[in-house]
Amino acid sequence: MHSDNSFWPLDRSEVAAFDDSADVIVIGFGAAGTSAILGAREADPEAEILVLESTGGPGGAAALAGGIIYLGGGTAVQRACGFEDTPENMEAFLLAACGPEPDASKIASYCQGSVEHFDWLVAAGLEFEHSFSHETQMETVGTEGLVYSGGEDAWPFSDIATPAARGHLIRTPGSTGRLLMKTLTTTALAAGPVVSYDSRVERLIVEDGRVVGVVARQHGVQRHLEARRGVIICAGGFIWNDAMVGRNAPVLLEANWKVGTEGDDGRGIEMAQAVGARVKQMHAGEVAFPIIPPRRLMEGILINAKGQRFINEDTYNGRMGQAALYDHDGEVYLVIDEASYEPNWMGIQASWVCETPAELEAEIGLPAGSLEATLSIYNRHAAVGEDPVFHKAASLLHPLDGHLGAFDLRIGKIPYAVFTLGGLDSDTEGRVIDLEGSPIPGLFAAGRSTSGVAAFGYASGLSIGDSTFFGRRAGRTAAQR
Amino acid sequence: MHSDNSFWPLDRSEVAAFDDSADVIVIGFGAAGTSAILGAREADPEAEILVLESTGGPGGAAALAGGIIYLGGGTAVQRACGFEDTPENMEAFLLAACGPEPDASKIASYCQGSVEHFDWLVAAGLEFEHSFSHETQMETVGTEGLVYSGGEDAWPFSDIATPAARGHLIRTPGSTGRLLMKTLTTTALAAGPVVSYDSRVERLIVEDGRVVGVVARQHGVQRHLEARRGVIICAGGFIWNDAMVGRNAPVLLEANWKVGTEGDDGRGIEMAQAVGARVKQMHAGEVAFPIIPPRRLMEGILINAKGQRFINEDTYNGRMGQAALYDHDGEVYLVIDEASYEPNWMGIQASWVCETPAELEAEIGLPAGSLEATLSIYNRHAAVGEDPVFHKAASLLHPLDGHLGAFDLRIGKIPYAVFTLGGLDSDTEGRVIDLEGSPIPGLFAAGRSTSGVAAFGYASGLSIGDSTFFGRRAGRTAAQR
Repeated sequence: MHSDNSFWPLDRSEVAAFDDSADVIVIGFGAAGTSAILGAREADPEAEILVLESTGGPGGAAALAGGIIYLGGGTAVQRACGFEDTPENMEAFLLAACGPEPDASKIASYCQGSVEHFDWLVAAGLEFEHSFSHETQMETVGTEGLVYSGGEDAWPFSDIATPAARGHLIRTPGSTGRLLMKTLTTTALAAGPVVSYDSRVERLIVEDGRVVGVVARQHGVQRHLEARRGVIICAGGFIWNDAMVGRNAPVLLEANWKVGTEGDDGRGIEMAQAVGARVKQMHAGEVAFPIIPPRRLMEGILINAKGQRFINEDTYNGRMGQAALYDHDGEVYLVIDEASYEPNWMGIQASWVCETPAELEAEIGLPAGSLEATLSIYNRHAAVGEDPVFHKAASLLHPLDGHLGAFDLRIGKIPYAVFTLGGLDSDTEGRVIDLEGSPIPGLFAAGRSTSGVAAFGYASGLSIGDSTFFGRRAGRTAAQR
Repeated sequence: MHSDNSFWPLDRSEVAAFDDSADVIVIGFGAAGTSAILGAREADPEAEILVLESTGGPGGAAALAGGIIYLGGGTAVQRACGFEDTPENMEAFLLAACGPEPDASKIASYCQGSVEHFDWLVAAGLEFEHSFSHETQMETVGTEGLVYSGGEDAWPFSDIATPAARGHLIRTPGSTGRLLMKTLTTTALAAGPVVSYDSRVERLIVEDGRVVGVVARQHGVQRHLEARRGVIICAGGFIWNDAMVGRNAPVLLEANWKVGTEGDDGRGIEMAQAVGARVKQMHAGEVAFPIIPPRRLMEGILINAKGQRFINEDTYNGRMGQAALYDHDGEVYLVIDEASYEPNWMGIQASWVCETPAELEAEIGLPAGSLEATLSIYNRHAAVGEDPVFHKAASLLHPLDGHLGAFDLRIGKIPYAVFTLGGLDSDTEGRVIDLEGSPIPGLFAAGRSTSGVAAFGYASGLSIGDSTFFGRRAGRTAAQR
């Protein structure tokens, strides 16, 4: 017997009669869910779509995000800004950046369909300014439509694929997630789904190995809802489930900021596992690390608690964040000199300013001589515009001397903003894959309920990117007659 | 419908009649399986026990291993060798060494029961010399019964718990796994189980949520076998299943040596998942890294491809191996001087010998100045017996100068010997836990089919240690009337 809160599947034979029915039931009304609605509508304009959202409104984690959408292969914005990108070039980058063991099928599909997906998002109401900003990376501060968001122009990726900016931002200043989701939600609602808020899906209903509905608690009342063609899980990741994070991605428990809503409790993943779904890459997490902009700060050096550099400072800040948290226990610092100093975009200032490296080591509490040793090799090469150790771009290299300062980037001193990247195994059409590698009839998923384009390595915009891309696919597949 | 090779459970209603039956069915005749037999016999001297082993003989991965058993809390060997250990001291070490997020219940149980378990192993026929060797760590070269096998005497653990050697080795020179398993196998066979080799378990049989048997292919013939009280999965890990490793612990695909038998294909884990079992810590892997003995080589420094040190060289070599593979892409080197040079126990010699650090950097292909910078800070502190950066013991510190040599420890140059540590979630009595946290009736597991004492961080001997400890427990629980 299972508790009232069980997510174990209910057999159809135990359901006397359904309280309601639809062709497609979408669980979760965030980026993946809105796109699943639109995809379902494309496949069948007459399909009855029921959306069950556990919180009181739409938007999901995407509405809380910076709002970058990772697209490429030659979008209108890329072309207008002078970037020559191709699906193949984009694919080469993602295969290198999203591993180890990225999902090559999803990446290929995503890259081949990316320009079309951009146009689809424009048709869905999103407006992108045909302009590029080199300053911003994590979030735009102006209204520019395109930024680098994955370290494409930095080592080693700049050697692997032709650098192209692919972080697309809608035309609004600051964090664009909320407006982005407002627009997509409005468009999705116009497609005529029935949307039920405060509706928490508790269990899937199965019949002869096929998912045929869900048990949901709608405004406190338990109801049995039939899905004639399919159920699409767009219910987010599991960052709000500490036990699940502890079993699967324990390092993320050390971070101090969770990106997501309370709906990101892993239930969507676990209720699918309870009908035999397979998961993958469950240890993976994105770690946003808000030290830049301004880009000028990249002229400094990131060091760990041993006073050692550990990454090229001009790469994607999420890559810095993953390295800082996964490999260096979240104990890192940015050392700058007066020539490269600016407060960062969040108003964070240097915690220490000293006259010598030895003094700065002592102030921070680094081993004596460690920063001096690091600076000696860094400065020696920077003086001739080289960084043979971590390959930072020559334009950001100069010897760090004179007064030195350091930003305290340890967990707690700045937010390490994390969400989970692991989840259900799904195919390029949005079907959920079972433990043996076969699709589970009637069950689909997208967004952070799945392991997506980014297996472990990440670029900003990949989550809204693959949520909308494969969400639409899942909707199309599920709604097919 | 599933393929012939399906591991999806079969419902009891689809079995016309069982071909054979036993009280307890044990899947796998390695370290966990032998102990499960003995545990079942303890619980019920009359219990009928059937062992199904997929290969042609007993022993499992343990017979291929170095054969260390991690035990403590004051065993007879520890006491005779002068180590004062307690269950609480052992627990403090394991909680610090086995994370992140180690299984505190299993660790507590294992430490409290460790002395009794040692005595039980002696009663099962294992002989341990009451002698300690400080030289050997990975494998003994003499017949000494006790070695350090987890870095207990090195930073940071030496500050957390009183150092005590806990790597127990039976009285035989060299790798002891084969003799160890021969002895345990003989003892287990004397307990009177029916053992069937060349018997591959394909699926579990379930009835009303309880595991009641297995479908097995015995010498090529498919048979339905009833387990009246329980099925115990002691079927090893998943290192021989590349796809499963790729989905869960992709870094391990980079290693070049798999520790285990072809039976370590993950099927035991997956067939349990197919009845709703939960897994955890699936990304974890042990990485044996056979650079020491001799211990004297620890006087050198381990560096990565950036010429940086990354760990205290006096710690457990498995910890070095995990750091090398997980954090440094398996691109590491050991730099030594003439005073610390010896060929290693496998006959590996230094690949380079040079007169200056600059020359050695160039030979290895390290960034110019990187090793010089590392040596400058290392030597400065080593001259006064200190290592403020990585806290290596003073007795192993001296400035590295004169002619320098380096061992090439990159993957392929030496074996990175790996096996998986993640697996089924199980409780301290050997019961398999389902997705919701409840025991699955009739299903038990032990050994590397489970996530055990070592969540991620490891010590040599923990695998044979927890396989025998919780294998015995699982047998006792399963065989209870």
